[in-house]
Amino acid sequence: MPKAVVLLSGGLDSTVTLAIALDEGADAAAISFRYGQRHTKELDSAEAVCKHYGIEHRIIDIDLSSFRSALTDRRAEIPSDREGDLGKNIPITYVPARNIIFLSIAAGLCESMDAEAIYIGANTVDYSGYPDCRPEFFAAFRKMLAEGTKAGVEGRAAEIRTPIIGLSKAEIVRKGKELGAPLHLTWSCYNGSEKACGRCDSCRLRLKGFKEAGYEDEISYG
Amino acid sequence: MPKAVVLLSGGLDSTVTLAIALDEGADAAAISFRYGQRHTKELDSAEAVCKHYGIEHRIIDIDLSSFRSALTDRRAEIPSDREGDLGKNIPITYVPARNIIFLSIAAGLCESMDAEAIYIGANTVDYSGYPDCRPEFFAAFRKMLAEGTKAGVEGRAAEIRTPIIGLSKAEIVRKGKELGAPLHLTWSCYNGSEKACGRCDSCRLRLKGFKEAGYEDEISYG
Repeated sequence: MPKAVVLLSGGLDSTVTLAIALDEGADAAAISFRYGQRHTKELDSAEAVCKHYGIEHRIIDIDLSSFRSALTDRRAEIPSDREGDLGKNIPITYVPARNIIFLSIAAGLCESMDAEAIYIGANTVDYSGYPDCRPEFFAAFRKMLAEGTKAGVEGRAAEIRTPIIGLSKAEIVRKGKELGAPLHLTWSCYNGSEKACGRCDSCRLRLKGFKEAGYEDEISYG
Repeated sequence: MPKAVVLLSGGLDSTVTLAIALDEGADAAAISFRYGQRHTKELDSAEAVCKHYGIEHRIIDIDLSSFRSALTDRRAEIPSDREGDLGKNIPITYVPARNIIFLSIAAGLCESMDAEAIYIGANTVDYSGYPDCRPEFFAAFRKMLAEGTKAGVEGRAAEIRTPIIGLSKAEIVRKGKELGAPLHLTWSCYNGSEKACGRCDSCRLRLKGFKEAGYEDEISYG
């Protein structure tokens, strides 16, 4: 079975991406990052999803807080729960070059493990304006790996697979349900309370996705 | 003054690179990584070099130990002090995709700070066989930034500057001396003892460089 590294945040998108990787026959290991998130509920979810599938899970610690402080120094806080603005603003959780950094670390792990592919749950439908979620970026990233890694110069640069890049949230939910992905273990809420808030951008997108897909979201809101 | 981020390990090459950046008029901030090195002498040196120049220094923590364990699981340890093998073997200190990861984080910091350039002390003369030290790699990396960052899609991707890429170790020493760089504060030895060992690959290259350049190395060996 071809080995693969799957970027797993513990949210809906990356969990469905993992389900697709496994469905495609990959011998997948998951990688998550502890990078100064305000809570670790997503990481707990990532852990639970990996246990569910019985796959290897590596959590990499990386302190990117100095980026955020540099950013927030020159930008006012943008509220995340105003009606009508969904997907239009750059959220306060934005970290410059985050996908580039995560993919680079995944590429290092890939090379360590002799893996062939990196799966990432990037999506251009619900979130627009993120340069590091576009197909052009992933193509350029792979070309860079072809020049900058041992595997690359030997002609076997890791492939970057983005199986949900063109799917709507409803289609992602449907795909996850079809593959039996443990969506009840995932966490999308920006807040770290016991129950999901149901009001932040991420909760609203998720709830809309489940509703349009015709499924009930089994996680607790309150 | 144009802002720049300089990758500074605290060794000779990166310190001379910083001296060049400052000489070119950059408003430079330095970035170093605590990534599971066996000792932190280099980081202490980086700190001292930044104090010497009175510039901002950020140390980013990143745990890459799981890469190395994955690597060493499938490879025997390569001794680093055998005569005649200098520069031919991949040293045990090799971390897959390390420059890619460091440059990605520097790119994130660049974007946070609205900086224009990243300086890196990569060199192809004394070390060969590292794909992520070649000009082709840096060109591909910049193209990737042009696609994957906000600054990039706005037409101002950070430049990747490699001012010592074609210099021999002796030329690097001469350049440092010419610019008054604090070479006495730098640390190159793979070991973390009080004095540099003088025998590891890195010490031998450094000593050879100083000798050929006609300067005395002011750090202590013993």
